[in-house]
Amino acid sequence: MKPLDVLQQSLHKRVLVELRGGHSFRGVLDGFDQHLNLVLSGAEEVVNDQVTPKAGVTLLRGDSIVYISP
Amino acid sequence: MKPLDVLQQSLHKRVLVELRGGHSFRGVLDGFDQHLNLVLSGAEEVVNDQVTPKAGVTLLRGDSIVYISP
Amino acid sequence: MKPLDVLQQSLHKRVLVELRGGHSFRGVLDGFDQHLNLVLSGAEEVVNDQVTPKAGVTLLRGDSIVYISP
Amino acid sequence: MKPLDVLQQSLHKRVLVELRGGHSFRGVLDGFDQHLNLVLSGAEEVVNDQVTPKAGVTLLRGDSIVYISP
Amino acid sequence: MKPLDVLQQSLHKRVLVELRGGHSFRGVLDGFDQHLNLVLSGAEEVVNDQVTPKAGVTLLRGDSIVYISP
Amino acid sequence: MKPLDVLQQSLHKRVLVELRGGHSFRGVLDGFDQHLNLVLSGAEEVVNDQVTPKAGVTLLRGDSIVYISP
Amino acid sequence: MKPLDVLQQSLHKRVLVELRGGHSFRGVLDGFDQHLNLVLSGAEEVVNDQVTPKAGVTLLRGDSIVYISP
Repeated sequence: MKPLDVLQQSLHKRVLVELRGGHSFRGVLDGFDQHLNLVLSGAEEVVNDQVTPKAGVTLLRGDSIVYISP
Repeated sequence: MKPLDVLQQSLHKRVLVELRGGHSFRGVLDGFDQHLNLVLSGAEEVVNDQVTPKAGVTLLRGDSIVYISP
Repeated sequence: MKPLDVLQQSLHKRVLVELRGGHSFRGVLDGFDQHLNLVLSGAEEVVNDQVTPKAGVTLLRGDSIVYISP
Repeated sequence: MKPLDVLQQSLHKRVLVELRGGHSFRGVLDGFDQHLNLVLSGAEEVVNDQVTPKAGVTLLRGDSIVYISP
Repeated sequence: MKPLDVLQQSLHKRVLVELRGGHSFRGVLDGFDQHLNLVLSGAEEVVNDQVTPKAGVTLLRGDSIVYISP
Repeated sequence: MKPLDVLQQSLHKRVLVELRGGHSFRGVLDGFDQHLNLVLSGAEEVVNDQVTPKAGVTLLRGDSIVYISP
Repeated sequence: MKPLDVLQQSLHKRVLVELRGGHSFRGVLDGFDQHLNLVLSGAEEVVNDQVTPKAGVTLLRGDSIVYISP
């Protein structure tokens, strides 16, 4: 299974995205491109166990991503 | 929804942009390119809860961006 | 043996992946691409000897990888 | 408005350029290229509120830039 | 002598590979590509004088490499 | 004035080059390429106000450069 | 003089190579490529005034290089 296939299969499902520098995001994957830029809806940012909900859709830059899991 | 479509839909709306190193910007998205370089008008820079308004339009370099949300 | 051949031979086997910043992952390699983006199933994240199991498949961004071993 | 249009409109006007690592520069924008490398004349470097004037023209490498504002 | 020729000559010989962030690896060079991704067999990881043997072949990402010596 | 024109005009003149990580160099610009790699002759390295003269010509890697001024 | 010409002229001569993170190397330049990857023979690594001789030829990755001087 190719990495982009994983994203294709995760569309419209909840994912956890870990970013460099200790941020992470949880939300529903609404889109992506070949640079691993991601679109999340209903996202929550998690920094040091502190959860901040984000209105609308959040765009995460692929360059900042360490891993993506369900 | 592709990442660049999110930016297209956010044109002329307020966005929050988180940059590497703890800066963030709030402002109205007036433009962007495929590198995720962004143009904000009426922008405010936020560093450690300290808000600094920026006159005119601010150009944010895509390389420095972690995420963009409404 | 070329680096991508190592990944090809490791398909469906357990690997250890060390990431920048002190994270590492153990899991079964289910896929990869030429950027060294990896797909792991049954993955566990290891940070400072603390092990966190990850449900489903985990996508690791190649940019963050330092080394991969069995 | 595209990011490079902002630079085109800022030609021969004063700009503030924030660089990675806490440096910033103020000066008149005399030129730029598509990598966001910038040419400033009459520039002042600002590090921790300490202002150092720079003679002649200063070339700022685009890679180091976080944002540009008027 | 071109850099890649050095790797070609080092094939099946022991090398020391220094990575960013204070890791290093010793092992027999079994392969490489033009990105300087390396394949080591019988590798040992060395961090702060602590040596950890690695079973099988280890793939080191070229991006993380500082230098390679015999 | 394009950024590379600034370098062309600075040929055979003294420049100050600030690098990432607090190094800087002063010297006569003897050459450059499109990556902003620079050749300085009669260069002095300055680290924390300590000046070290360099014999012959010094090649500075463009990737490490923050700014160049006269 | 173009940056790569400096390397061409330094072939078979002793150079000092400063790397990111406080390492440096001294040795005879035996080769290079357009990425500034370098081949040194008879190299010594210098970290905090501690000198470690390296047997055979050492390959330095261009990405890690800050400057090269005679």
